Amino acid sequence: MNTPTLRDLGEDALVARLIQDLPLSGDVIAGAGDDCAVLESPDPDRYELLKTDCVVEGVHFFPGTPGESVGWKALCRAVSDIAAMGGVPRAALVTLVAPPDRPVTEIEAWFRGLAKAAREYGVSVVGGETSAPAPGSDSAMLSITLTGWVEKDRCVFRHGARPGDEIFVTGVLGGTLSGHHLHFRPRLEEARWLVHEHRPVAMMDLSDGLARDLRRLALAGGVGFRIETGSLPCRDGSSVAEALGDGEDYELLFCLPAEEGDVLLAAWSEKFPGVSLSRIGRVTTADEGFHFLDVEGECARIPEGWGHFSH
Amino acid sequence: MNTPTLRDLGEDALVARLIQDLPLSGDVIAGAGDDCAVLESPDPDRYELLKTDCVVEGVHFFPGTPGESVGWKALCRAVSDIAAMGGVPRAALVTLVAPPDRPVTEIEAWFRGLAKAAREYGVSVVGGETSAPAPGSDSAMLSITLTGWVEKDRCVFRHGARPGDEIFVTGVLGGTLSGHHLHFRPRLEEARWLVHEHRPVAMMDLSDGLARDLRRLALAGGVGFRIETGSLPCRDGSSVAEALGDGEDYELLFCLPAEEGDVLLAAWSEKFPGVSLSRIGRVTTADEGFHFLDVEGECARIPEGWGHFSH
Repeated sequence: MNTPTLRDLGEDALVARLIQDLPLSGDVIAGAGDDCAVLESPDPDRYELLKTDCVVEGVHFFPGTPGESVGWKALCRAVSDIAAMGGVPRAALVTLVAPPDRPVTEIEAWFRGLAKAAREYGVSVVGGETSAPAPGSDSAMLSITLTGWVEKDRCVFRHGARPGDEIFVTGVLGGTLSGHHLHFRPRLEEARWLVHEHRPVAMMDLSDGLARDLRRLALAGGVGFRIETGSLPCRDGSSVAEALGDGEDYELLFCLPAEEGDVLLAAWSEKFPGVSLSRIGRVTTADEGFHFLDVEGECARIPEGWGHFSH
Repeated sequence: MNTPTLRDLGEDALVARLIQDLPLSGDVIAGAGDDCAVLESPDPDRYELLKTDCVVEGVHFFPGTPGESVGWKALCRAVSDIAAMGGVPRAALVTLVAPPDRPVTEIEAWFRGLAKAAREYGVSVVGGETSAPAPGSDSAMLSITLTGWVEKDRCVFRHGARPGDEIFVTGVLGGTLSGHHLHFRPRLEEARWLVHEHRPVAMMDLSDGLARDLRRLALAGGVGFRIETGSLPCRDGSSVAEALGDGEDYELLFCLPAEEGDVLLAAWSEKFPGVSLSRIGRVTTADEGFHFLDVEGECARIPEGWGHFSH
């Protein structure tokens, strides 16, 4: 019998298996499985947020990517996760793994991009680490840990969606490799406004594509969904399949009770005229499953293991 | 003119160059350059501590290392840094980078070791991330971020040494590749006792070898030192050069006003009979430089760029 590999198991199942025996104390509100870890804070009105995220050369960016974009992307991915909880970022640690023969100027460019993003989003870069990769490996990576905070009564988890809620997404989706994935602006201001003015019941940021991430949100809440693919905000030139599957959108996906949807859409377009907000479907019961309806109203059930989105 | 590489610059100079333009806000007490980052906390009596640290296969451990030891080492390295500030660890994030064809059982063993260390030192593992390495790379790594806290009036930085202070080191040094580097116990209990009972004026943990780390402590405080190499606690079978240079000792290096040394040594041997504590030398003025005296009293000045300890 062959020993199963990480590829056989897949990322979500691997994480589920690895975390089952890890210790958690009572002051941990949410551990692995949401956009951030959520912990009690010495401030009784707030939670602490913790997030770690890495970009690997050859996986999340490619040799030849402008260095400032590498640093910008690395930090902004983590800021997007803090935003997805409704929170505010605070302090970052940076781990750099780079081959010894890499030019200093290249790594300095990474850090310029990082510093630019840190200033933009109010983040202090407080430390980190450097290491060489394994001998013979020429790949570099940048790993970011970001702390933040959120008012307890504004914190939004993934698991709060209920049947009947409407599903919204900010911005446009798909085609991110044309440049968006390097230059995106995390929806920090938008998320802070949302949690103060409209209180989404569930929220996450889109990093692995709507089809995959929405399924995670639905599984977290024990619900199903019906998405009208004709309502999807596809980036210019992108197909519905690309909007569902490309990933790296770094937009907000959230759910709101149906009676509040119209009010939200009106207020949003006034507050953020440059950022689209789309109502793309509705939360259903888990029994109804996961559905994407095409423009003819045909209904396609997305199977759990749909190869295009599996690892 | 060739563009300088990371190897040309070396780790310490690289870090110094990279951090110079990174933003820091006023609530950051200590950023890069100490064992941990130190931040203001909502609790006015405490600081928050943040540390990130990674182990790379082929650099910090080798293929064939028992999996549980990899996880144990990864977390305990960070615990050792929290201890070196006088603090208490709290919550960890784990980043796993591993090739897709790696057996699941191997990674599970890493996490068993991690969980064991987490339970031992009261750490909650609250989240993390997984990624594949660059295509073609077969190297795995584990990166840990650890949060902690310390009472403000007990926090010990690297920079507090003053001429005349005595220099101490816990445990024995050198020869760590024979096994110690995989199984060490971070000096958490010892450090907490020290900061409550004897208040070291400067402290750090030994990860890169006494010669290199002591130099960092001296540079941080703007002081020099004289070490009597005959007083060095060499591990059985290790030479003075190995005790100075091998690294991965994870012992505490600290300074105390000279008049308190005898009291400390007596109290220590009563409190921690199984752990040695050695008085190895004295802090001097920066003008006096960095000196290691051999048993004949001969004095060898260790130059800044001594190749054996440089990258």
